[in-house]
Amino acid sequence: MEIITVERRILEKNEDIAKENREILRGKNVRTLDLLSSPGSGKTAILEQTLDLLAGRIRMAVIEGDVQTDNDARRIAKHGVPVVQIITHGGCHLDARLVRSAMDSLALDDLDILFIENVGNLVCPAAFDLGEDEKVVILSVTEGDDKPLKYPLAFRAAKTCILNKTDLLPHVEFRSEVFRENVFRINPKATLFEMSAKTKEGFGAWTAWLSDTLLP
Amino acid sequence: MEIITVERRILEKNEDIAKENREILRGKNVRTLDLLSSPGSGKTAILEQTLDLLAGRIRMAVIEGDVQTDNDARRIAKHGVPVVQIITHGGCHLDARLVRSAMDSLALDDLDILFIENVGNLVCPAAFDLGEDEKVVILSVTEGDDKPLKYPLAFRAAKTCILNKTDLLPHVEFRSEVFRENVFRINPKATLFEMSAKTKEGFGAWTAWLSDTLLP
Repeated sequence: MEIITVERRILEKNEDIAKENREILRGKNVRTLDLLSSPGSGKTAILEQTLDLLAGRIRMAVIEGDVQTDNDARRIAKHGVPVVQIITHGGCHLDARLVRSAMDSLALDDLDILFIENVGNLVCPAAFDLGEDEKVVILSVTEGDDKPLKYPLAFRAAKTCILNKTDLLPHVEFRSEVFRENVFRINPKATLFEMSAKTKEGFGAWTAWLSDTLLP
Repeated sequence: MEIITVERRILEKNEDIAKENREILRGKNVRTLDLLSSPGSGKTAILEQTLDLLAGRIRMAVIEGDVQTDNDARRIAKHGVPVVQIITHGGCHLDARLVRSAMDSLALDDLDILFIENVGNLVCPAAFDLGEDEKVVILSVTEGDDKPLKYPLAFRAAKTCILNKTDLLPHVEFRSEVFRENVFRINPKATLFEMSAKTKEGFGAWTAWLSDTLLP
């Protein structure tokens, strides 16, 4: 029982800081998205394309969460936006306190959208509110059309879902229709985008959603 | 500080049960492998091929760990081996206690190899000893050649590494040579297998290792 109590205390403390983060970010009129996925689903590649497509129109920054290495922050920095790397040294998810410390390094007054790339993990990050406006769950077609049912917490926590690597559909056994059914079974109100960060196919709908729906 | 103490206590208790599991399994002359990977890397598909290729020669069983659903156990059961499904209901890894309860459902006297398919997660399962002989980390080529550096705990904890989905190499930007360098940088003594669970390419070396090296 003690363990459960402590876990609850960690989550409650996280909720408090997340609430403060949300107030700070909304006070500065910054929209914030928390990107969740397994390792290698293409979170960073999607961000790179998004940053390029919206450059000059929307002011963006990125908080990068990784277990180890600052490879992703270096990739993002090449696209000319502010980026803060959080290395968790084994930690399996970001939390609101870590995000707050990264927020403190960013000029929030100069931002429209803050992207938070969480640690590559489809399980733990789903349980932690960071103060974002919403979570976005990303799956690539190579991971299988059954994954919304197998990892329901992530697909329930995220209002928005991205299916990535659609360029590989001819080479894998992935039934897009079954995937969509599974997404909407877990989260009937989900917004679903299908795209390829490699070919840029499908990015029009996603960037239009960011610029027209997410932003006020 | 309290949190750290409790986490340590959880790990210490896990170590105790894992040690007992190991004694039980070795006492029954059962070799046990703990398979780790991200969701969708092909753990179940590799097991399915392995079970078919070694059927009639080696007596095998599978413990399936999943956050939700018994889909994988149903896939495995079709291959005619004993299988026990553990559903963690959100838990991000198996632990030694869960594995013990599954072991209690298996006729260990009738087994040569016990495969444990861990929850799809490249972070948390690496920290938990289940009583296995060794951990096997699986990565698919669609996940990127940088992953051993980004998830070093898993690649350090596993003596054996499998690169899966080599049939997709022509369609992705994956540098096999860089991947191998990264694997051996994290774990210089790693045993590396490269295969495709779809085409069965590369399974000869893996099944030979199971039957000749792993088994006494």
